[in-house]
Amino acid sequence: MNATVETLRNKLSADSIVDGGSLSERHFVDWSGEHPCAPIAVVRPRNIADISIIMQQCSRDRQPVVVQGGLTGLSGGATPRPGELAISLDRLVGIEELDAAAGTATVLAGTPLQAVQTAASEAGFLFPLDLGARGSCTIGGNIATNAGGNQVIRFGMMRSLVLGLEAVIADGTVVSSLNKMLKNNAGYDLKQLFIGTEGTLGIVTRATLRLYPLLPAKTTALCAVADFDAMIDLLHRLQAGIGGNLSAFEAMWDSYFGYVVEHVAGLRSPFDVRFPICVLVESEGSDARADHDRLEAVLADALAAGVLLDAAVARSEQDRENLWRIRDGIAEITPMLQPMLAFDVSLPIASMPSFLAQIDRAARARSESARLLVFGHVGDSNLHVAATTGREQDFPALRDIVYGTTGEHGGSVAAEHGVGTLRKQYLHYSRSAEEIALMRRLKGALDPLGILNPGRVIPD
Amino acid sequence: MNATVETLRNKLSADSIVDGGSLSERHFVDWSGEHPCAPIAVVRPRNIADISIIMQQCSRDRQPVVVQGGLTGLSGGATPRPGELAISLDRLVGIEELDAAAGTATVLAGTPLQAVQTAASEAGFLFPLDLGARGSCTIGGNIATNAGGNQVIRFGMMRSLVLGLEAVIADGTVVSSLNKMLKNNAGYDLKQLFIGTEGTLGIVTRATLRLYPLLPAKTTALCAVADFDAMIDLLHRLQAGIGGNLSAFEAMWDSYFGYVVEHVAGLRSPFDVRFPICVLVESEGSDARADHDRLEAVLADALAAGVLLDAAVARSEQDRENLWRIRDGIAEITPMLQPMLAFDVSLPIASMPSFLAQIDRAARARSESARLLVFGHVGDSNLHVAATTGREQDFPALRDIVYGTTGEHGGSVAAEHGVGTLRKQYLHYSRSAEEIALMRRLKGALDPLGILNPGRVIPD
Repeated sequence: MNATVETLRNKLSADSIVDGGSLSERHFVDWSGEHPCAPIAVVRPRNIADISIIMQQCSRDRQPVVVQGGLTGLSGGATPRPGELAISLDRLVGIEELDAAAGTATVLAGTPLQAVQTAASEAGFLFPLDLGARGSCTIGGNIATNAGGNQVIRFGMMRSLVLGLEAVIADGTVVSSLNKMLKNNAGYDLKQLFIGTEGTLGIVTRATLRLYPLLPAKTTALCAVADFDAMIDLLHRLQAGIGGNLSAFEAMWDSYFGYVVEHVAGLRSPFDVRFPICVLVESEGSDARADHDRLEAVLADALAAGVLLDAAVARSEQDRENLWRIRDGIAEITPMLQPMLAFDVSLPIASMPSFLAQIDRAARARSESARLLVFGHVGDSNLHVAATTGREQDFPALRDIVYGTTGEHGGSVAAEHGVGTLRKQYLHYSRSAEEIALMRRLKGALDPLGILNPGRVIPD
Repeated sequence: MNATVETLRNKLSADSIVDGGSLSERHFVDWSGEHPCAPIAVVRPRNIADISIIMQQCSRDRQPVVVQGGLTGLSGGATPRPGELAISLDRLVGIEELDAAAGTATVLAGTPLQAVQTAASEAGFLFPLDLGARGSCTIGGNIATNAGGNQVIRFGMMRSLVLGLEAVIADGTVVSSLNKMLKNNAGYDLKQLFIGTEGTLGIVTRATLRLYPLLPAKTTALCAVADFDAMIDLLHRLQAGIGGNLSAFEAMWDSYFGYVVEHVAGLRSPFDVRFPICVLVESEGSDARADHDRLEAVLADALAAGVLLDAAVARSEQDRENLWRIRDGIAEITPMLQPMLAFDVSLPIASMPSFLAQIDRAARARSESARLLVFGHVGDSNLHVAATTGREQDFPALRDIVYGTTGEHGGSVAAEHGVGTLRKQYLHYSRSAEEIALMRRLKGALDPLGILNPGRVIPD
């Protein structure tokens, strides 16, 4: 019997508190699956006023809370820690306005990403954030983690797509900054405090999102190159050659590509031979024929210059889907590679080859059966590494190898999956003592009692 | 004889302190020209360590400072207030690194914008921030004000172009976050604290900037439309029709356009008749012929649909320069319109027509000789209004009319020129009490003694 829960039961509607035997295990852990823990209760606010009441009461009682959206995070940020009250935003769902003149959508934080994509598309717009968990993840979670995905090279991360937002801070104050304008410098841009801070500075409740015109023409190609330098040369040729239309540049080293095409049923490479690196390239524009011709011309030049070894341009939507299935094959091979660690790091592009050589060498020195599958959003400086030695005991050593080497190269131990509880101990590889002290100072200013998603992001 | 100045004279090199008769009036006021005031001295740090020493000493002595870059601001932010020590970044100049693989430039904060544009261009890159003061304004000032300019519709404001930065906070701590990567979510994104906060939370000392591939092909056109709705229809057609290549959409109402072409020597309209609104449209891409054809096709369709009344596509660089001179003509007509107020507001696009009708009506009610010249970056929701009644006594009334009406329509009283000291009293039209309280809380957390650019941005 928790006093805060009992007080809230009186202050909110009866169905807003779920506890005891009614509690679903869904609320115990995020998609990382690590360290599940039951919250003392789940409170399901119906509106923003409810959230304000909850936080006022939790402040009075110094009751720590964990905020939950779609629970699709991979870093433990939404997994309860012992004694926490979970605030689920699953009733805060809906698109409140779609302003066609401004090209904006104002949505409640619990709205699934896919619902926003669909509503935008039905109104003739594109909401360009896209990631595998689109059906379950929520806009609030996308904002809290500054989500990335496949189109960052063109449209930026979630931070670039949020024009305004509303948040409830730890003491229950509702701070509403629902701006619709691209340019607004009327004082501090407060929304930045709540984007990418994983719910530690406030609970995002609403957002005004930037929409783009729908681009009907997609051209997709798989490009084979001999090495890293050729891949970067190709990237620069595409950036110069197809102008603002380049919307994906997804690299797959053969360690990944070869494994996927060999192990996933029904998938095949468009090439008869294996290449060191394959890159999935996509252009999005408004003129299918012209865009296609322009991409082919850039690729033909690169082939003639010896930069490209081979290329396969998708001739049908089925071709295109096949190419994307190779890129998305990580979901299908993950179960086959267990016990496996999934790293999400970013690095200055010039450092990537030495980073990869170094982690490969170190992992093999640790275990002869070490296997590193490498792929990622190279145009965004973001690499994903699936690492396994076949033995879970090697996890700490693998983490030290990958995060330590990332730090040596000035990289980031958390590119797009957040820090949460599971990666905060590695933050020092990417952030200085002064940076971490400033994060603490901010946390102290906005949440002096330390009740909002405590123990996330900032190292203890 | 100020004790802090004397202590700093001992701690820094002899030529780092300028005071007394050697003090140049250049340091007394920014380009607004309003309320010039001599600082107690100007200190000219040679490096970041000097800035840290200065701020440590000023913290000890509770000595308020004002930070100065190119002094091209229009809101009084860099103009000293009585008793302030000016820190000039005029020796902190230089491009420290241009990383072609990453597409980044790391520069010292006192470097002029144009020097960065030139260095990028020489290396085959575009640094897309551009504004009239490019030769004098500095990167540090561009960051502090989150500068905008003509290409925001495509590349975003300065915030989108800063990948990493370094700042010295009020107590002298150097916080270095010189990230080169597009994706980095390793904890709070601290650079956001220093972008657009006008030096009130820290002194920006270095930045890592995002470069784009140079786009050689520019196509420019002047488009005439009958009304606001047709202009927005044209904007949407261009966004859909030339994909990511649209880099400028600069609207000029006839109140502005007609005045400029009549009063600026050597300028002429490409049209024989006057139109309600003309829009300067520019596309930037990699294929001159194809880009030109595509823009012409979109314009031809718009003409056939009755959206466009007429269009003139630039056939030469001279044509292009003539069109831009009309847009940039505000600099040339400003002296002719004195006494004049220059407003820089942003508004949800759908509200613009009623906003304009309302301020026009109110200004005319105030004075029969009221004249409002309207132009701006409509695609970015940003309008500039040059307003005059011929009498300086009407300034307060004109400010109340324009800022009050902006507030009524959910707009921003400061789109891209900052708040400084001159606009802070109007901030409440755009920001709620909760937002302003949160700004104060942040300021208190980072600068508890209130010595860093005090009295700027946040209302008293």
